Amino acid sequence: MSKKPSIPKGTRDFNPEEVTRRNYIFNVIKETFSLYGFQPIETPSFENSETLMGKYGEEGDRLIFKILESGEYLDNVRSELKELDFAIETLLDNIKAHISYFENKYDLNKMRIDREFLEIEILKIVNKDSIITSAFATFISDLFRFSNNTYYSGLENIINDYREDVLREAFMPIVYKNYKYPKFKIRNLFNSIFYESTDSIYITKNISKKALRYDLTVPFARYVVQHQNEITFPFKRYQIQPVWRADRPQKGRFREFFQCDADVVGSTSLWQEVEFVQLYDAVFSKLGLNGVTIKINNRKILSGIAETIGAEDKLIDFTVALDKLDKIGEEGVKREMLEKGISEDALQKLQPLFSFKGSNDEKLNSLSEMLKTSELGVKGVEELDFITKTIEQLGLQTASLQIDVTLARGLNYYTGAIFEVSAPAEVNMGSIGGGGRYDDLTGIFGLKDMSGVGISFGLDRIYLVLEELNLFPETVSENSKALFINFGEKEALYAMKAISNLRKAGIKAELYPDDTKMGKQMGYADKRNIPFTILAGEKEMETQQYTLKNMKSGAQTSLSYSEMEKILTK
Amino acid sequence: MSKKPSIPKGTRDFNPEEVTRRNYIFNVIKETFSLYGFQPIETPSFENSETLMGKYGEEGDRLIFKILESGEYLDNVRSELKELDFAIETLLDNIKAHISYFENKYDLNKMRIDREFLEIEILKIVNKDSIITSAFATFISDLFRFSNNTYYSGLENIINDYREDVLREAFMPIVYKNYKYPKFKIRNLFNSIFYESTDSIYITKNISKKALRYDLTVPFARYVVQHQNEITFPFKRYQIQPVWRADRPQKGRFREFFQCDADVVGSTSLWQEVEFVQLYDAVFSKLGLNGVTIKINNRKILSGIAETIGAEDKLIDFTVALDKLDKIGEEGVKREMLEKGISEDALQKLQPLFSFKGSNDEKLNSLSEMLKTSELGVKGVEELDFITKTIEQLGLQTASLQIDVTLARGLNYYTGAIFEVSAPAEVNMGSIGGGGRYDDLTGIFGLKDMSGVGISFGLDRIYLVLEELNLFPETVSENSKALFINFGEKEALYAMKAISNLRKAGIKAELYPDDTKMGKQMGYADKRNIPFTILAGEKEMETQQYTLKNMKSGAQTSLSYSEMEKILTK
Repeated sequence: MSKKPSIPKGTRDFNPEEVTRRNYIFNVIKETFSLYGFQPIETPSFENSETLMGKYGEEGDRLIFKILESGEYLDNVRSELKELDFAIETLLDNIKAHISYFENKYDLNKMRIDREFLEIEILKIVNKDSIITSAFATFISDLFRFSNNTYYSGLENIINDYREDVLREAFMPIVYKNYKYPKFKIRNLFNSIFYESTDSIYITKNISKKALRYDLTVPFARYVVQHQNEITFPFKRYQIQPVWRADRPQKGRFREFFQCDADVVGSTSLWQEVEFVQLYDAVFSKLGLNGVTIKINNRKILSGIAETIGAEDKLIDFTVALDKLDKIGEEGVKREMLEKGISEDALQKLQPLFSFKGSNDEKLNSLSEMLKTSELGVKGVEELDFITKTIEQLGLQTASLQIDVTLARGLNYYTGAIFEVSAPAEVNMGSIGGGGRYDDLTGIFGLKDMSGVGISFGLDRIYLVLEELNLFPETVSENSKALFINFGEKEALYAMKAISNLRKAGIKAELYPDDTKMGKQMGYADKRNIPFTILAGEKEMETQQYTLKNMKSGAQTSLSYSEMEKILTK
Repeated sequence: MSKKPSIPKGTRDFNPEEVTRRNYIFNVIKETFSLYGFQPIETPSFENSETLMGKYGEEGDRLIFKILESGEYLDNVRSELKELDFAIETLLDNIKAHISYFENKYDLNKMRIDREFLEIEILKIVNKDSIITSAFATFISDLFRFSNNTYYSGLENIINDYREDVLREAFMPIVYKNYKYPKFKIRNLFNSIFYESTDSIYITKNISKKALRYDLTVPFARYVVQHQNEITFPFKRYQIQPVWRADRPQKGRFREFFQCDADVVGSTSLWQEVEFVQLYDAVFSKLGLNGVTIKINNRKILSGIAETIGAEDKLIDFTVALDKLDKIGEEGVKREMLEKGISEDALQKLQPLFSFKGSNDEKLNSLSEMLKTSELGVKGVEELDFITKTIEQLGLQTASLQIDVTLARGLNYYTGAIFEVSAPAEVNMGSIGGGGRYDDLTGIFGLKDMSGVGISFGLDRIYLVLEELNLFPETVSENSKALFINFGEKEALYAMKAISNLRKAGIKAELYPDDTKMGKQMGYADKRNIPFTILAGEKEMETQQYTLKNMKSGAQTSLSYSEMEKILTK
């Protein structure tokens, strides 16, 4: 293998600097999570397929990485195929009856066949049993396909017509859905390899039973249900692990990336929404990323609005359009709503939303005015009011909390508060975090009435923002403080004794492993950005000293061990 | 989905306590790695299949988790199938020639067929073109399978014989290897689903192009070759990431587990072996796991011994047997060696090995005596001598370094030093780490002459040992220090102000989210092992005090904020 190796598209190698910087972000987030009483859990990288499939919509299911069954994953397929062969055999017996019926009726060898008449004859059978028909059709065409008796071609065409119509319409549906004839599901498998793209899903089920985690929320829900008896509720957990998506890779979109989630399940208290706002503020302040905007909305308000303008039935369309306000503007939004069948009259009632400016209080006032007729809407306003008022009293360090009625984020998922964090205006990055309240997290796994609320941090984007704003601390480095030059065995031993002590003192130091040219060793320290080199040759050994060279200034000083340790500790 | 969800066998969920304890071990290892000048890298969870396949032997390949191609992974299969259909059509044309030849020669309808004669006739064709024969055979049997003309059964048997013999021997090999007839490789795919278990490998290649990391060494080699121009050599890297193996799960053997590796590539200096011994000692000392034994051997010594006793050709057998000394004893080892064809005479020469006791120096003396005729052996002794002598002079904190000539560990992989760490005798756990020197790490990816040496830590076993010996520090916990009891909105706000300040002071504190019965809230603190609860009700609000309750002693004290913070800081 001489061609240079590579990694799958959408994946990344991380070099030491990148790993260190990513860990810096992770650690700030982890510390804060744990300050807020969240505890870490970890779940396996792959889950049983049934745990993940069907939880993310059709699109999501397609983007889940499936794992091929290990070992002889084709064995069961094969054994079912044997069953199928048997099923076909028995079918053929039935068919033989019809054949002889044909053969007795017409001497195929003597006369040309009256196409129309034959069609009628075949239809008789068709109407009797579609399975037999299809197999019959298959049989006849197989039989004649291989024969060079031209006078069958007319019949063959008919059969082919039937193959398209009768088989697809009468026979295949039954087989494909394999309601009645489970034995045929492998015929299905087999057909699908040949023709039916729609059936690759079927095959996949047969050869893959595990899949890579697509997000952390569904595995968390699974965890809560599976371990419900060991868990003390309300359960505050955080989880920082990679997830995988077979998305088309793009700039900033990867097939493997980390998610950082914190969630609480088992309580409906709004204090948690309050804490999550504080938590966002705390993390971004610690990262020195000042001036982020925490946008907040409430699903109940969106429903309430749709209700008051008489568009409950169009809630999704309504919100999708509203969500685009900052992109396509007021006119654009209205146009889209009209297209979706929301009435002029409704848009009239909606007007205040577009002139929605000012403080959170002002927004809340116009909202409660607008929604006073909607019970759900009023509830939403109360919730928003509590959260914003409480945060006002507690104060935030560097972030600001801003009501944004157009904020939707996977509406059909959230049931209460909706959060989204946007980076400071000067960086054009969009959302660097988000979350919200979902009233039935664990229902999909049979544990009802578990309200959950959670937020997540977009690591990759946060990384880019910190890089762009130059906010990574200088000190974030795993780099060695000092490199000892290797002058040969005796000297290296002298150096290694010092190195051992430095390391015991918590100072990162290393010996250049080979006794090579000084220049090469210095070059290594230089490329590695190691701030100090230490020369410990015969001279130094005699005097029990160490010559410390500052790689920036080039200045050299002769020091005792303790003096050296003091300098390197700084 | 009402049945309780589960996770795939061989995988694990980790609860907060387990995660915290695992991270404690990881952090000690990471800190030490970085003290020793190692820098972290990370590689993707899945690699291109060609990067992994063929690197771990046949057994290893089977244990690699393959990822199903996402999207319509069957499309190319399908398009090739269309080509195949065409190929078959043309074949059939050829066959028709043979058919008519048959039909002219014998009136199949009139006479029974002379089996022997037909066989000869068919053989004529067989010898002409094996492809045609097979298709021909297929055709005939298809044709007759559907017919109820009994007198063909004789012929059908013959065809079936040919199906087995001719097809397998003449036709299939060509197709399977698909040298000459690429269009047929899908027939192969298709056949394999039906009959050929051996072909699942073939299918796998077609539907999977990525696989989950099986270890960290091969991805590291790939990384070094791919990024060779950005890397400063010697390159000291560490990597702590999960790996996946489709092994049969057992107690203590998992399908997903973490590996912790540190390696240096690009230098042959023995100082690195010295440092790795120190590193093992440092990590286990920090973990409080005193008295581990670092066993060391050298591949050159094993080769040297095999050479001197005249069993070079039996090196593997020789070492495998020797490796079992502590299990099956001297007699057992000798018996196995004899069975493997190692001579009595050789075993005589081997005798000293079995009486191999005493200090490292004594062992080295008898080794150099025993190996003086083997150049390789002498080299091995010199290397061992340097490492052990140097370590003697540098000293170890709590571990001991012990020469063990029976230590082999994947012999055909290592070329120099071999390490293995065993837990203290009192715990029966076996190896908790290992490693060694391999002279050609990156050769598999086309980068020659890169000597590497590395070690790894067995996280799961270390965890079990620390647990058994009760060595996890009490303080290893992400748990909150204090829970504020929730007495309602006003009081909760008062509490939350204190909580915010405590958190700013780095103290883990939380508010019970719901205003429920005191008992329930206390119970929560109790179950979560939160050491203090804080009551901040109306009374406290008036006096700006906080009532702190010690959950162990039950003692309650009324404190000002600063007094409370002081106590919780301890």
